[in-house]
Amino acid sequence: MKLSNFVSATLVSLSLLSSASYANIGSPTDAPSRPKNIVIMVGDGMGPSYTAAYRYYQDNPSTQEVEQTVFDRLLVGSASTYPAAVSGYVTDSAAAATALATGVKSYNGAISVDVDKRTIPTLMELAKKRGMSTGVAVTAQINHATPAAFLSHNESRRHYDALAQSYLDTDADVLLGGGQKYFPETLLAKFADKGYQYLSDFSQLAAVEQPKVIGLFAQVQLPWAIDEPDAQRLSTMTQKALTLLSQNEQGFVLLVEGSLIDWAGHNNDIATAMAEMHEFANAIEVVEQYIRQNNDTLLVVTADHDTGGLSIGANGDYRWDGQLLKAVQASPDAIATSAIAVDDWQSHVAQQLGFTPTEDEAQQLSNARMQGQKVLDGAIKTLIDSRTNTGWTSSGHTGVDVQVFASGPAASLFHGHQDNTDIANKLISLLPKKAPTASNNSAPSKSAAPAKVETEALLP
Amino acid sequence: MKLSNFVSATLVSLSLLSSASYANIGSPTDAPSRPKNIVIMVGDGMGPSYTAAYRYYQDNPSTQEVEQTVFDRLLVGSASTYPAAVSGYVTDSAAAATALATGVKSYNGAISVDVDKRTIPTLMELAKKRGMSTGVAVTAQINHATPAAFLSHNESRRHYDALAQSYLDTDADVLLGGGQKYFPETLLAKFADKGYQYLSDFSQLAAVEQPKVIGLFAQVQLPWAIDEPDAQRLSTMTQKALTLLSQNEQGFVLLVEGSLIDWAGHNNDIATAMAEMHEFANAIEVVEQYIRQNNDTLLVVTADHDTGGLSIGANGDYRWDGQLLKAVQASPDAIATSAIAVDDWQSHVAQQLGFTPTEDEAQQLSNARMQGQKVLDGAIKTLIDSRTNTGWTSSGHTGVDVQVFASGPAASLFHGHQDNTDIANKLISLLPKKAPTASNNSAPSKSAAPAKVETEALLP
Repeated sequence: MKLSNFVSATLVSLSLLSSASYANIGSPTDAPSRPKNIVIMVGDGMGPSYTAAYRYYQDNPSTQEVEQTVFDRLLVGSASTYPAAVSGYVTDSAAAATALATGVKSYNGAISVDVDKRTIPTLMELAKKRGMSTGVAVTAQINHATPAAFLSHNESRRHYDALAQSYLDTDADVLLGGGQKYFPETLLAKFADKGYQYLSDFSQLAAVEQPKVIGLFAQVQLPWAIDEPDAQRLSTMTQKALTLLSQNEQGFVLLVEGSLIDWAGHNNDIATAMAEMHEFANAIEVVEQYIRQNNDTLLVVTADHDTGGLSIGANGDYRWDGQLLKAVQASPDAIATSAIAVDDWQSHVAQQLGFTPTEDEAQQLSNARMQGQKVLDGAIKTLIDSRTNTGWTSSGHTGVDVQVFASGPAASLFHGHQDNTDIANKLISLLPKKAPTASNNSAPSKSAAPAKVETEALLP
Repeated sequence: MKLSNFVSATLVSLSLLSSASYANIGSPTDAPSRPKNIVIMVGDGMGPSYTAAYRYYQDNPSTQEVEQTVFDRLLVGSASTYPAAVSGYVTDSAAAATALATGVKSYNGAISVDVDKRTIPTLMELAKKRGMSTGVAVTAQINHATPAAFLSHNESRRHYDALAQSYLDTDADVLLGGGQKYFPETLLAKFADKGYQYLSDFSQLAAVEQPKVIGLFAQVQLPWAIDEPDAQRLSTMTQKALTLLSQNEQGFVLLVEGSLIDWAGHNNDIATAMAEMHEFANAIEVVEQYIRQNNDTLLVVTADHDTGGLSIGANGDYRWDGQLLKAVQASPDAIATSAIAVDDWQSHVAQQLGFTPTEDEAQQLSNARMQGQKVLDGAIKTLIDSRTNTGWTSSGHTGVDVQVFASGPAASLFHGHQDNTDIANKLISLLPKKAPTASNNSAPSKSAAPAKVETEALLP
């Protein structure tokens, strides 16, 4: 990727928009060639094994065929994820999010600052300058690496308090996720002064009708989807964010992150990972449905990196029984916690797993239980890996390329292989070229002209 | 993929060719929309971690950028690889090759027969019926699963002798690879009766000027590329196959397989795997160059499955030092063999590895050497994995989707996600619809009309 670091966004923009105009020839719809709205969705840690595993996990065993998933429908290409040379070839979430938000490679740990720790303009900042609204909906704390790199700047992802504080100045219209721990009352009071409505309970979300809103629904990250499958928090937050942001006639940029796919990957926890994948897939389908009704909206989905070195099949055995995971009723962590607390723990665990452990397996669980919750959690994950034949190589990230999915105007720009920085540069090139003449106010304005772009304006 | 098994090739053909006609709108060249020639290249076992690892292995450390590879240039999509339901979700090479050669899912072990063991017409058989030439150039024995599924039929890939015998009737024009063991003199005499020139030594290949030719350059598979880096056997065979097959004005179908990527993956041998990837990449570049001069040729590259669960980085460490592999002088197998035979084995091993083992590492190698060649081979691979931080989960295959790469006329048909059977159905749909009126003879014929197809003929 010789070009990605050195060609200016302007040059990229020229050549890309030339392709974009081609892409529209013969299109069956009358969708504009430049999007009014951009939704970027990141499956944190969602390497290529995760989307394939999700297909087999979702497969209906009563049919001969393997059903397609939303990922199969939307795949258009792939992206390399390596960070700046100083950090080698395996990225962390901060450097990857910086690449996706700014188009610039940086060191692992960087939040939208370059290798010399200078701030780099982000897609969302540029969108704001052009009168668009911005928002994030994530399942981690809202000041975690991925949303932070889209909204703020810091030399370290670990400066959670400073990042939370900095959000006062980002002017984002919708902030939904976890992170109460990092937003004390004094800080929330300042958000209120800036016109934000604060939500601390998920049930409050339905009634919200106007930005700005900051919703923090957990101390840190949201609960695992597998432990509260009916909550559908990410898809609900995504739907609400779309509704609120749509009020701006100048358009919007929304980041949605399936944050906890990565956390489950770090834990080498396949049952929890697949449930997080399902919730992320549901959120993508919410956006797909929105695009059907709003053909001026571009959706780009990708991952920041792979986590865990997950493999579908392991140990020389040509088998993966991911179907078994659909019967698992709770995260291994939650199963271990409840199994420690009850006397008839064996039948409880069997009920929670959806299968009865063999005598040998039960003995291993029993030995683990005597060593406490953490060891039992590990033993349950090992048992599930063994039953499903799931492999892992790491508690960290790996360097495999991630997939790129897209739909809507200019989706064809994302076809083929690209670097993660190219994704940002392409998105930035699709922003309107100028701020609206009226004002930079992102409040709804029925009199504002719609952000329609003439095809001619896209030619180099 | 509900459609793939049930929609006939005809229906697929109609919709695909409709897309193909779109794809040509705005194309900068005057390339035909249907190819005259098809080259399908299979990186056996080449899951997505292999192509990304190859990029970092090839990276020039003296530049800030990471250079693109041929895989980055040509990527267009991905393919699922699962076999027929009876074999679960993880394919073997036989079922995968059957899918790629026929468009039909079958059981693991099947050579172009369906789940009821009925023969299924292959891309190469259909091409022959339409007057085209066919050929294979592989680094395994020519009767190994992948080439066998393109050329023949058998209920089991293990019936090597029957498969070799069956090649008498496949009428392939070019057969290049290994496998002397399976072609005794009596069988070779029959090939001679059919007009085949037989080559047993690689040096004879340069002088061949006409098909038909059967070249078997090893008892079973060819030597590892890492052990004879200057031989460039696969790219040389590919170049010769293109030259010979081009003599047919009716066009050709050529299969090229980087067979031993998979074998190195089964051995969890990253140094050997990367050298095989390099030789496969070189062979792709030979075809890329051919396409530049022959814009009527379609190239499709894919893998049959992933092998080994390779990961770029492992053990919680965000690091992959693949550059170290470029200094490795021989396969661990060969290093172990030579290290057993010499007294000053420690300096020999250091010279072969390109680095000096630490005291602890040397002690481990010493302990392994006392247990013989095989244990030492394993210890050398473990040392290389540790130094490079390479992960593996299996000595077998995994179920991750593979990548799809394409260039030339109708390459756009392969964009996005597809099933491996779709690749075959698309290729079959691109064959000429009828046999030539003159004869089915595939010998060169200067008087035959060129296989040019009018655009109108491609519309549904």
